[in-house]
Amino acid sequence: MMKESMVKFSAKPRLKKPILIEGLPGMGYVGKLAAEHLIAELHAEKFAEMYSPHFPHHVYIEKGGMVRPVRNEFYWTSSGGKDMIILAGDVQAVSPEGHYGVSDKVLDVAEQFGVEQLFTLGGYATGRHHRAKPRIVGAVSHRRLIDVYSKHGVVIEAGGGPIIGAAGLLLGLGRLRGMRGICLLGETHGMVVDHRSAQAVLGVLTRILGIEVNMSALERRAKETERILERVRKEMELRERRERRRGEEEAWYIG
Amino acid sequence: MMKESMVKFSAKPRLKKPILIEGLPGMGYVGKLAAEHLIAELHAEKFAEMYSPHFPHHVYIEKGGMVRPVRNEFYWTSSGGKDMIILAGDVQAVSPEGHYGVSDKVLDVAEQFGVEQLFTLGGYATGRHHRAKPRIVGAVSHRRLIDVYSKHGVVIEAGGGPIIGAAGLLLGLGRLRGMRGICLLGETHGMVVDHRSAQAVLGVLTRILGIEVNMSALERRAKETERILERVRKEMELRERRERRRGEEEAWYIG
Amino acid sequence: MMKESMVKFSAKPRLKKPILIEGLPGMGYVGKLAAEHLIAELHAEKFAEMYSPHFPHHVYIEKGGMVRPVRNEFYWTSSGGKDMIILAGDVQAVSPEGHYGVSDKVLDVAEQFGVEQLFTLGGYATGRHHRAKPRIVGAVSHRRLIDVYSKHGVVIEAGGGPIIGAAGLLLGLGRLRGMRGICLLGETHGMVVDHRSAQAVLGVLTRILGIEVNMSALERRAKETERILERVRKEMELRERRERRRGEEEAWYIG
Amino acid sequence: MMKESMVKFSAKPRLKKPILIEGLPGMGYVGKLAAEHLIAELHAEKFAEMYSPHFPHHVYIEKGGMVRPVRNEFYWTSSGGKDMIILAGDVQAVSPEGHYGVSDKVLDVAEQFGVEQLFTLGGYATGRHHRAKPRIVGAVSHRRLIDVYSKHGVVIEAGGGPIIGAAGLLLGLGRLRGMRGICLLGETHGMVVDHRSAQAVLGVLTRILGIEVNMSALERRAKETERILERVRKEMELRERRERRRGEEEAWYIG
Repeated sequence: MMKESMVKFSAKPRLKKPILIEGLPGMGYVGKLAAEHLIAELHAEKFAEMYSPHFPHHVYIEKGGMVRPVRNEFYWTSSGGKDMIILAGDVQAVSPEGHYGVSDKVLDVAEQFGVEQLFTLGGYATGRHHRAKPRIVGAVSHRRLIDVYSKHGVVIEAGGGPIIGAAGLLLGLGRLRGMRGICLLGETHGMVVDHRSAQAVLGVLTRILGIEVNMSALERRAKETERILERVRKEMELRERRERRRGEEEAWYIG
Repeated sequence: MMKESMVKFSAKPRLKKPILIEGLPGMGYVGKLAAEHLIAELHAEKFAEMYSPHFPHHVYIEKGGMVRPVRNEFYWTSSGGKDMIILAGDVQAVSPEGHYGVSDKVLDVAEQFGVEQLFTLGGYATGRHHRAKPRIVGAVSHRRLIDVYSKHGVVIEAGGGPIIGAAGLLLGLGRLRGMRGICLLGETHGMVVDHRSAQAVLGVLTRILGIEVNMSALERRAKETERILERVRKEMELRERRERRRGEEEAWYIG
Repeated sequence: MMKESMVKFSAKPRLKKPILIEGLPGMGYVGKLAAEHLIAELHAEKFAEMYSPHFPHHVYIEKGGMVRPVRNEFYWTSSGGKDMIILAGDVQAVSPEGHYGVSDKVLDVAEQFGVEQLFTLGGYATGRHHRAKPRIVGAVSHRRLIDVYSKHGVVIEAGGGPIIGAAGLLLGLGRLRGMRGICLLGETHGMVVDHRSAQAVLGVLTRILGIEVNMSALERRAKETERILERVRKEMELRERRERRRGEEEAWYIG
Repeated sequence: MMKESMVKFSAKPRLKKPILIEGLPGMGYVGKLAAEHLIAELHAEKFAEMYSPHFPHHVYIEKGGMVRPVRNEFYWTSSGGKDMIILAGDVQAVSPEGHYGVSDKVLDVAEQFGVEQLFTLGGYATGRHHRAKPRIVGAVSHRRLIDVYSKHGVVIEAGGGPIIGAAGLLLGLGRLRGMRGICLLGETHGMVVDHRSAQAVLGVLTRILGIEVNMSALERRAKETERILERVRKEMELRERRERRRGEEEAWYIG
């Protein structure tokens, strides 16, 4: 059942050439923050969940005390005359092979709904605290898109370099399937949940899509995320130290 | 034969909607200790063994000098009018993918016997030596269970956070199959075999199940486990240092 | 689709018992540099691309801002009356299992085109800055080749030792399929892009093949590569530090 | 072709309930040394080679300059009225899952030839330089063997503890198939090629089998092995440092 990534559908919305927008945890939580804000503001509806053995081997306790496996989620909505699928989630895969497997599964779902255009969102770590208006760096998977998106204030990264994880792989593997897309990376420090970078990314994305999204709740959302993260960080530091020790003991335990 | 986890049945007991109780090595050995105590006190009978390529690649020398692969074990018993399957064992999986695979296999067995309700037992590391009466923290996989179990003195973890390994994954993946359950985590220091935490966990579990279990042997059992562990730790420290060196040499060895 | 390594053909050239020449990133970039120089100077044509889940999980931004998955590439050309397939690329596999899988796939392609002879190119790290004329060390996969190639100034490595990665595995696994070949390793410091070592390797290879290749652009090509590498190294140092931190946070993130 | 471990037979000897004797690289090279000595002294003949994607991803340069993948090898011989299969080789698997896979494949071959009895040989690291006559510690996979082998001077390890790698797994997994066997571990320092421990292991083994083996060449063989190892260690230290650096660069290389 869980040998490979698995998608559980709760609905099969009828969508007309939807675009796929991805935002998963990463640098400065820019992508995740942007995708979740979009889901909330556009009242997107969840229609599928993805579980994977390539995700970390823990479960997540939801508010209230309910346990569930970590997962990625597919939402859909319609705005500005455009159907959209939004991919958000708790985690990314834990191994290189896992990353390829999970991205491939996401593209299977995208293909099934007729997606031809991809937007992947993320942060671009500089290690410095960014300016008031963070720069948005982009990379595309089709030559024609360079001109199209340059107009919207995206600095196309022309000097080479790698993009790590889902934001890059979805574009790259999507290209092999004939999908076109852009990766929008907001300049960010990297270590803190960065609502200003997420806002800049959403600014460009909404201009491209010709839609409007109220940004006023974004800062509050970022602060809440940062607060939870801080708590988890402290807890995990302790747990990880124990985990390591536990790992050693488990391996050699004699009952 | 051993490409995937494999369950060897020595018997196929007829059970009526049994519950599954899991206790594997982890924080403070709380889960393992509790499950093994339960097996002994309720005279549970082993009916299956699980072997897996996701377990550590060593064998275990039993008392007397007999070698066997490390494994997990399924026991069954009946108490207070309830049929039970108890899962105990030497080890947990070594990789995230392995954890998913093994938990999935356990749930296959559970499903085969009609299990609808899960109880997973473990420790909750605090890094401090706990109070005389360790707190029991719980998380459930169905909303209705929150009220049910809160009555029995379980503090439902409402603030989020991850649960790592089998105790969490069994609940989470079980939820995807429609099984309901609770994870009972006893507060524990983390580094020592903790019979008081195991006793507290068993206290709550037996209250929930409406059964009685004599706890007098629990401390002795914990001390024995601690003594063996201490010996193994010392031995392993030496072995591991050699192992590392051996690994390097093996890799480059020219015969 | 991406469960395993996959080869995308853009053409199926008709080749007559072609030889396979491999040069991928490794010590001193000797192999990669040599193969890319050969491709440019012999006007070799690309006919296939290989993608693999065993490659690193990032994409590569080409000059101009286009994103593509990292890959290996097959080129073909004809020179000195000999048909040739040249394998070059961005990366090697990330795990031992991956290395076996990818090398095996390359040999499938080679077999499909009737390849019987392999030339794998690489560097041999000494940790010292090499002499004006780096020594070329070789190892073969058929006894008869020892005499054949010793004539061309190759020092056959007779004292044992391992060869790591594609340059070795292709020869070794090729031998199991009845292909014969030689690995040409140019002495190099190891840490810098070494055009002199690449030139020495190409010197031996072209003598063996009886072809001529203009070497004048090699130094420029090496310098360009070194410059790009230097930039990437600096960028990656920062990114990696963030990556690690990000990894921890991702794993435990609670949305 | 190389998705899984693969056995290449050069002959299919007719054997009558042969025993399997295993000696692969490990602590003090005791097992490997003992198995290779046995192969030489009993004039055993190679009949099969095993290759595996779970072995390290390098090839081995044989004396003379010939390259081959690292491998394990099956030999057969007949002595004292007993047919024997001897398993020796360059390496063990690199991952836990790989260890299970490779051991399982070895047992497939053993089963195919009707093996019912296993002898696995290895070292038992003490970190101290051993006495003139190293102790031989044993563990068995069937209760009846305890008495049988105790007579021959084997100290049955009765106090528990793990056995790591092929010497343990073959016994453990063999037990699940109904094969019986003993693991003979010679006390050894761990860090040096130990002919005295190998001699002690062979002393017990030959007493059990009722055969005679001339030990005079064992010390010379060990010294030769130690000399080669020393050379490889130095070479590898340098290579590994470069490898790590190379790994980083490869991953981020932009051509």
